[in-house]
Amino acid sequence: MDINEYRKQAKKAVDDIADYYESIPSRPVLADVRPGYLRPLLPDAAPLEGESMEAIVADVQSKIMPGITHWAHPGFMAFFACTASHPANIAEMWSNAFNGAHFNWICSPAVTELETVVLDWLAKALALPDCYLSGGPTHGGGVLHGSASEAILTVMVAARDRYLARVTAHLPDGEDRDEQMWRHRSRMVALGSAGAHSSTKKAAQVLGVRFDTVPVDEASGYAMTGPALQDKLAQLRAKGLEPFYLTATLGTTDVCAVDDFAGIAATLAAADTSAQNNGTTTTTTNGTAATAAEGNVWVHVDAAFAGSALILPEYQHLTPPLAAFHSFNFNPHKWLLTTFDCSAVWVRSRADLITALSIKPAYLRNEFSDSDLVTDYRDWQVPLGRRFRSLKLWFVLRSYGLAGLRAHVQRGIDLGRSLDDKLAARPDLFVSFTPARFALVSFRVVGADDDERNARTETLYETLNASGQVYLTSTVVNAVFAIRVSTSTAAVREEHVQATFDLIVKETEALLAKA
Amino acid sequence: MDINEYRKQAKKAVDDIADYYESIPSRPVLADVRPGYLRPLLPDAAPLEGESMEAIVADVQSKIMPGITHWAHPGFMAFFACTASHPANIAEMWSNAFNGAHFNWICSPAVTELETVVLDWLAKALALPDCYLSGGPTHGGGVLHGSASEAILTVMVAARDRYLARVTAHLPDGEDRDEQMWRHRSRMVALGSAGAHSSTKKAAQVLGVRFDTVPVDEASGYAMTGPALQDKLAQLRAKGLEPFYLTATLGTTDVCAVDDFAGIAATLAAADTSAQNNGTTTTTTNGTAATAAEGNVWVHVDAAFAGSALILPEYQHLTPPLAAFHSFNFNPHKWLLTTFDCSAVWVRSRADLITALSIKPAYLRNEFSDSDLVTDYRDWQVPLGRRFRSLKLWFVLRSYGLAGLRAHVQRGIDLGRSLDDKLAARPDLFVSFTPARFALVSFRVVGADDDERNARTETLYETLNASGQVYLTSTVVNAVFAIRVSTSTAAVREEHVQATFDLIVKETEALLAKA
Repeated sequence: MDINEYRKQAKKAVDDIADYYESIPSRPVLADVRPGYLRPLLPDAAPLEGESMEAIVADVQSKIMPGITHWAHPGFMAFFACTASHPANIAEMWSNAFNGAHFNWICSPAVTELETVVLDWLAKALALPDCYLSGGPTHGGGVLHGSASEAILTVMVAARDRYLARVTAHLPDGEDRDEQMWRHRSRMVALGSAGAHSSTKKAAQVLGVRFDTVPVDEASGYAMTGPALQDKLAQLRAKGLEPFYLTATLGTTDVCAVDDFAGIAATLAAADTSAQNNGTTTTTTNGTAATAAEGNVWVHVDAAFAGSALILPEYQHLTPPLAAFHSFNFNPHKWLLTTFDCSAVWVRSRADLITALSIKPAYLRNEFSDSDLVTDYRDWQVPLGRRFRSLKLWFVLRSYGLAGLRAHVQRGIDLGRSLDDKLAARPDLFVSFTPARFALVSFRVVGADDDERNARTETLYETLNASGQVYLTSTVVNAVFAIRVSTSTAAVREEHVQATFDLIVKETEALLAKA
Repeated sequence: MDINEYRKQAKKAVDDIADYYESIPSRPVLADVRPGYLRPLLPDAAPLEGESMEAIVADVQSKIMPGITHWAHPGFMAFFACTASHPANIAEMWSNAFNGAHFNWICSPAVTELETVVLDWLAKALALPDCYLSGGPTHGGGVLHGSASEAILTVMVAARDRYLARVTAHLPDGEDRDEQMWRHRSRMVALGSAGAHSSTKKAAQVLGVRFDTVPVDEASGYAMTGPALQDKLAQLRAKGLEPFYLTATLGTTDVCAVDDFAGIAATLAAADTSAQNNGTTTTTTNGTAATAAEGNVWVHVDAAFAGSALILPEYQHLTPPLAAFHSFNFNPHKWLLTTFDCSAVWVRSRADLITALSIKPAYLRNEFSDSDLVTDYRDWQVPLGRRFRSLKLWFVLRSYGLAGLRAHVQRGIDLGRSLDDKLAARPDLFVSFTPARFALVSFRVVGADDDERNARTETLYETLNASGQVYLTSTVVNAVFAIRVSTSTAAVREEHVQATFDLIVKETEALLAKA
């Protein structure tokens, strides 16, 4: 394909894609195909001779399109939204034009430098504490991954290696120290609340460390509390186990609960002080006792979905306690219009991350390396190569402005509250499970007991998704089945929420009439 | 931005990007900026009000563009190429249009199913053994990651867990088994040749297992041999260590060496037989002794760059020995025109990967789970969410056809040989370091001894890159400094190789005249 053909075909794709966007509301939201539908439609092997772009695009329309679930559909209220936008998509065209592996600064200096600048912009926009800024007091900074799972894996590696370095700091290098390290490894435990996303469990599985959960309950709205954490820490320590890492969550996957950050920080600070008084505290590598913020348990805050709400001043009271923690992530590709994939993570000490992930031998690093002018983000992540993801974030932040992004996020929150009000107005049909939080509502169908409510809610759930008009997901929390409705999709408006509510009412009435 | 403005702005981007492509050959290949150049050019924070697309794109041209190293430049002969193409970029537009997190089948069935089909196409195109096909005898299959580093991390996790399961299979679940597992973990060693890419060392670091290298030497062209592996295994085992994983390489990063796969397979088969005869063999979970192909050391073949050459029939004699190994990866985003990122990995047993990476509890899995119609690729990788990467691979395979891709790869190989011939014709100036292999040539400047050759070659290297006409990389192998020239970029033609050679000659003559 020569450059003129590219101009023609790429513009044709722009029109085809715009036509697709315009068609979305009239399509069923969920793909209506059976498992294995595609293979019989395609040849067994790649063609020997090249085919025309027309033939390929015709197959996109006839063979791929039926197998697409339309995440941009206004009836897509499942999971959390994954919001694309025109400015982000145009940025992606530029990012592909500047195609390269970008694994170090010279590979394309703009790729590294824009990422540092834009992650500082974003940290400020979310009112994150200064410790997460690249120029902040603790030499922190941010980096873009493809997913929160990668973000959590990398900070858990940093937490593990920091912990091992501290608890063996008093030993000289050698077999004894190795032996002690393995003894600690065998006892180390990564923690998350029972509502934490599965990525924490998965990271622990990848690293081969133990994983345990802190229970949550209805009384705290399914948020992890300081006392619950304290109990779990005490239980683990009584068994000789060593908690070294905790994922706290700002907006859990199932019900968007916000863990009690202040309570968690207080619990960990108290545990550290107590350990210190008992003479059992570990010391930092420079010999001073660990402060609360640099305590033994690395606390990561996962705000993958709800972190976007921090651009609203009314939610920024949530961020000051993060100054006591070690890392924070959220996914601009979820609610912030930044087209998958774009997951941001900030650390309070980039040296902890680089020490764990750089493969440069220690003798090439020094105390000044973390204040170098040149950042090589390959040392902040698992992959070597990296895409130019910051470009789309920059396009989105500039194109919408903070005011535009706030309006978008606020609308999602308002629509969640609107649906919640509608459900509350029909106590004959519904019981609220958790109130509207961050554009997420969860509810159940009425019933005589939990078994009946569970059974009816599950039946309703299946009926709603079979309609083709909406796509919802469900959750089971402490044996309670609830339907989740997320109003965070970019296209959703009051009319769609009303239509969804009307459908829910209609199907629930039919269900109860049959009972 | 409404849909009409999107049509206008995205088409404008197509033209701007096409203009950029046309301008590349007249630009300096390397970005000519100083570290920290960008921050002073940008505001301190995101704007409150949205800005026009015109203003943003103007900044792309004036502020981002100077910080771009042009990987599509015909003078880009550094690292390995990272080749984009117009069909792949158009596919990326569609992939962004179908934006979603795609973490399971229903998220968009086409995303999962096309990936399985296209990876089978690609495995056939490379003549990989049947065990790597999704419908093959060992229930294998392929998956797309963003990078070879992720591919290697995931197979190393699978290898670790498979090894641990085997060596503790005779023990009942409980503390004793846990204790034994930790004992093994503390002794497990991942291996690569001294020429293996750093991603193997990094994966070992992430998992917290030991890493060691098998030495290579000039006599074997820097390829790992069976005897060298045998020596290393014997040394490790004599120390009570337990090698469980090996990266063998098809096309090492420094000099594109191909490890001796047949020799490696024979060494490992002999080691397994010998262990079996001594009664020290480990047994598989169903109690039978491990066969050679299912031996104790998981062998992964990393063909990140050179794997693309396997689409040429003349290189397909390299693949039959892979039937004795466990996994294979190569990066279509390197030499196969598939726009970053797109890294393919195949495993002979997908159950090994899923067992290690799925977070579904064991009681929800069963012996049929790996033959399910529905593949959830989240269980094949670290991230949960995933991009629709197979679409661009499908566009590329169909748009070029195998014939077109073969012509592209063959041209890179021919141009490498052409440069090698030119260098060989000037023995007064150059010594070959390794012969042209897979579009990679490495050479040195003549000198009285290694020190002089090293010093002169390094000086030449810096002079060439300062010219702005070409961008080359260097390598140091066993204390020998050599310049690497990779002729795998899509735009490179004989005229560019000739110009590069002329520049090399001119600068070398100048250098020697000064000496």
